[in-house]
Amino acid sequence: MNNMSNRPVRPQGAAIGDRIPFCANDESGQWRIQAMSAVTGPELPIARYLHIGDGGPENTPVWTLSAFVSNLRYTTALERQALHEQQAGLGRADAQHAVLIPIRKNAVWWSMAQDERREIYTRSDHTPIGLDYLPAIARQLHHCRDLGEPFDFLTWFEFADSEADRFRELLTRLRATEEWSYVDHEVEVWLTR
Amino acid sequence: MNNMSNRPVRPQGAAIGDRIPFCANDESGQWRIQAMSAVTGPELPIARYLHIGDGGPENTPVWTLSAFVSNLRYTTALERQALHEQQAGLGRADAQHAVLIPIRKNAVWWSMAQDERREIYTRSDHTPIGLDYLPAIARQLHHCRDLGEPFDFLTWFEFADSEADRFRELLTRLRATEEWSYVDHEVEVWLTR
Repeated sequence: MNNMSNRPVRPQGAAIGDRIPFCANDESGQWRIQAMSAVTGPELPIARYLHIGDGGPENTPVWTLSAFVSNLRYTTALERQALHEQQAGLGRADAQHAVLIPIRKNAVWWSMAQDERREIYTRSDHTPIGLDYLPAIARQLHHCRDLGEPFDFLTWFEFADSEADRFRELLTRLRATEEWSYVDHEVEVWLTR
Repeated sequence: MNNMSNRPVRPQGAAIGDRIPFCANDESGQWRIQAMSAVTGPELPIARYLHIGDGGPENTPVWTLSAFVSNLRYTTALERQALHEQQAGLGRADAQHAVLIPIRKNAVWWSMAQDERREIYTRSDHTPIGLDYLPAIARQLHHCRDLGEPFDFLTWFEFADSEADRFRELLTRLRATEEWSYVDHEVEVWLTR
């Protein structure tokens, strides 16, 4: 009954509710996997390429993580305005690097009510830290907790070669926050076009 | 990779992320459909039974709506405590009536930020109105907007025969709120065991 749905299309071409598969495999993909490492929790199996979208029969997935683009869950109207004014889109010609970061938060996080989670999000400067790296580091959040996936979020970052050190700084700052104390599984997947 | 997931199981037996199909058909189901009517927007096709869960080959679906149980998106810690203290579970022996209400909210609602949606939710007394009918009218919210389904939510209510008039009053009060002005598709499906 999907034809009854009429959702606004996102700038990146993914509509709300579209399920996007991120398929790691050894044959082909839009992105070559440069490095993979678990920051917290178990590693993901090593693979050579990341294919985004439904794969053809030529691709044997080593692992597939699926997620969807949704509305923002914590961001206020003021924060969103600041983000919109400063952020850049995905797919810029000079953004030859991408990093996929699958994250899972623990049961304590998810047992909290909306206002309790929002308070930690605010105290952790989640939005201000991200704003410091705009527009150089573009970002798209994908949700997967509600799909029964092993992670809760897949965050996608894109940036130019010159911005790699600043991107590492962004990760260091976020991981030092109170919010990140609730992360119990996090993997970095570094990619080049 | 679902085996990596370890989610708390809900009292009703549905785990976070479990996708639950509500399958209307003419052959069989745990619930008999008594009446169906669209409050706003198009009707759903008429059927005789509602089967919840994966159907066997003997059931030809007239329509199927799928959704998942998730964490609360607006409820504060205080509100949640009040709900937990007063609410009853699903499946009570005397709760012979159920109503399934699929709801879709319009693009204006979803274009608002979290704080803007929460303000309308608060001004609309969404939680206080629901509390007035606890524990007599049990309720479970299911999400489906992120699945590309035609509705955003499937709300499930259960109550005894003696509570039907109070349930209608609950619906009347909710539908008179500011929040409901953003609902552009709503159907009532009345059921008996």
